[in-house]
Amino acid sequence: MSERWASLGGQLVAAGDARVPALGGGVTYGYGLFETMRAYGGRVFRLDAHYARLLDGAPTLGLHVPFDADALRHAACALLERNGLEDASLRLTLEGDVPAAGAVAAAPARWLVTAQAMTQYPEPLYERGASAVVSGVRRNETSPLSRLKTLNYLDNLLARREARRLGADEAILLNTRCVVAEGSASNVFIVRGGRLLTPPIDAGALPGITRTTVLGLAPSLGLEPREEAFDVQALRAAEEAFLTNSLMEVLPLVSIDGEPIASGRPGAVAKRLREMYRAAATATE
Amino acid sequence: MSERWASLGGQLVAAGDARVPALGGGVTYGYGLFETMRAYGGRVFRLDAHYARLLDGAPTLGLHVPFDADALRHAACALLERNGLEDASLRLTLEGDVPAAGAVAAAPARWLVTAQAMTQYPEPLYERGASAVVSGVRRNETSPLSRLKTLNYLDNLLARREARRLGADEAILLNTRCVVAEGSASNVFIVRGGRLLTPPIDAGALPGITRTTVLGLAPSLGLEPREEAFDVQALRAAEEAFLTNSLMEVLPLVSIDGEPIASGRPGAVAKRLREMYRAAATATE
Repeated sequence: MSERWASLGGQLVAAGDARVPALGGGVTYGYGLFETMRAYGGRVFRLDAHYARLLDGAPTLGLHVPFDADALRHAACALLERNGLEDASLRLTLEGDVPAAGAVAAAPARWLVTAQAMTQYPEPLYERGASAVVSGVRRNETSPLSRLKTLNYLDNLLARREARRLGADEAILLNTRCVVAEGSASNVFIVRGGRLLTPPIDAGALPGITRTTVLGLAPSLGLEPREEAFDVQALRAAEEAFLTNSLMEVLPLVSIDGEPIASGRPGAVAKRLREMYRAAATATE
Repeated sequence: MSERWASLGGQLVAAGDARVPALGGGVTYGYGLFETMRAYGGRVFRLDAHYARLLDGAPTLGLHVPFDADALRHAACALLERNGLEDASLRLTLEGDVPAAGAVAAAPARWLVTAQAMTQYPEPLYERGASAVVSGVRRNETSPLSRLKTLNYLDNLLARREARRLGADEAILLNTRCVVAEGSASNVFIVRGGRLLTPPIDAGALPGITRTTVLGLAPSLGLEPREEAFDVQALRAAEEAFLTNSLMEVLPLVSIDGEPIASGRPGAVAKRLREMYRAAATATE
């Protein structure tokens, strides 16, 4: 494999050479945000929405975003081209220095974009559907961080690692009030009585870009989209369940803690939504 | 001020030049641990206990600690000398790469030590006593991270920032069951009926090194040390309260949300404990 490249502050650098200050906030406190994006045919899908979410989240941390959406688009395009990638996952990381006590101005933040060929989520997974276990770790919906994709991502990593150890594909996190918040790296949806339900943001769900897209697609399938809290029993009793994120798109969820959801087979809604999602993602303007 | 130095992997480097991989786990997920230590007269107090805590925590993340306590001691000594510091705060950061799915061996981690002159916690603060507010952010005691000092430190930073905005010195975090867990950067103690109480680790308290030291000192003041959960009402109604960490030592806590604790003045137990703590910390062996 040829050398991988990354984009640091909009400049192409060999990925292995990309460095950030060891005393910066990213390393010392996980002080920053990230976005995971997907490129189809060399074009990043919903890049503007990812950029907008980053811009929304930055003030909570006191971070300033030192580039605009066009700069991000250019960096992503150059990176995909340099790495010879068309269908790829991209990650944008923004990290900065923690302002000194009493400081008014936020320090300029650093940003990095990386890209990799899509290897996660192979087709057979969609044919059999994903399994999940309910994690013992709760999503802390009392924290403003639960609404942001911050570099404080260890709970999610540990929950997913535990799921993998148990032979499952994903971990479902409940919040401190014991209702479903999200997957370790995904939003959770259920179909019930003509409605498409997903946990509201204040239940601890990350405001996923794919989540929003999928909620928008529901009416064309005759489903009423609703942000509504539900518990694990409701997830187990769903007519159909699925997971979403920018890389997995719409992934059928067919079992929880070893027990099947409905027939235990991928459902028709997830299949149709993924087709519609893919059509939108790969449409030429 | 002369150039500051840091110790990266045991080697002295100009602090501004210290860099870590931008694609490493520290930056991308806050994948690492840290320790805050205090030097008195050029010697780090309880360095072995800090090292032991790091060693205890690393396996939870799948990190390997690539140095022993002596190497840490040597790095800290060299750093203090190079920076011309005797009375100082030190920070040890350990960060590594997230193992690929299915990887057995943990990647070797990187480590960094920094040192600064003590400027926080000036003497007048001990004379008036600290104020605290109860944070809206809950400490997530369901996460294994609550027992570790990880680079996922944003909740604590945001809670403290909110406290400072409200004119208070510290933020008190309750856990998801609404009992007191800890301060944003400290352990919390109360004196009640001949006992010295501090929240147990499973309530979400970080196992502080100073916390352990102070529990050990209690009997010589005729107090029975106990790890026992208590709520905000009990904190408000305490005969005396105080906070501990390696830098603040034993800091009287005299008000919560603007209401005084007991007389609203620093208590005798905190004063005596700090004297004993300082005597131990500055004793020549």
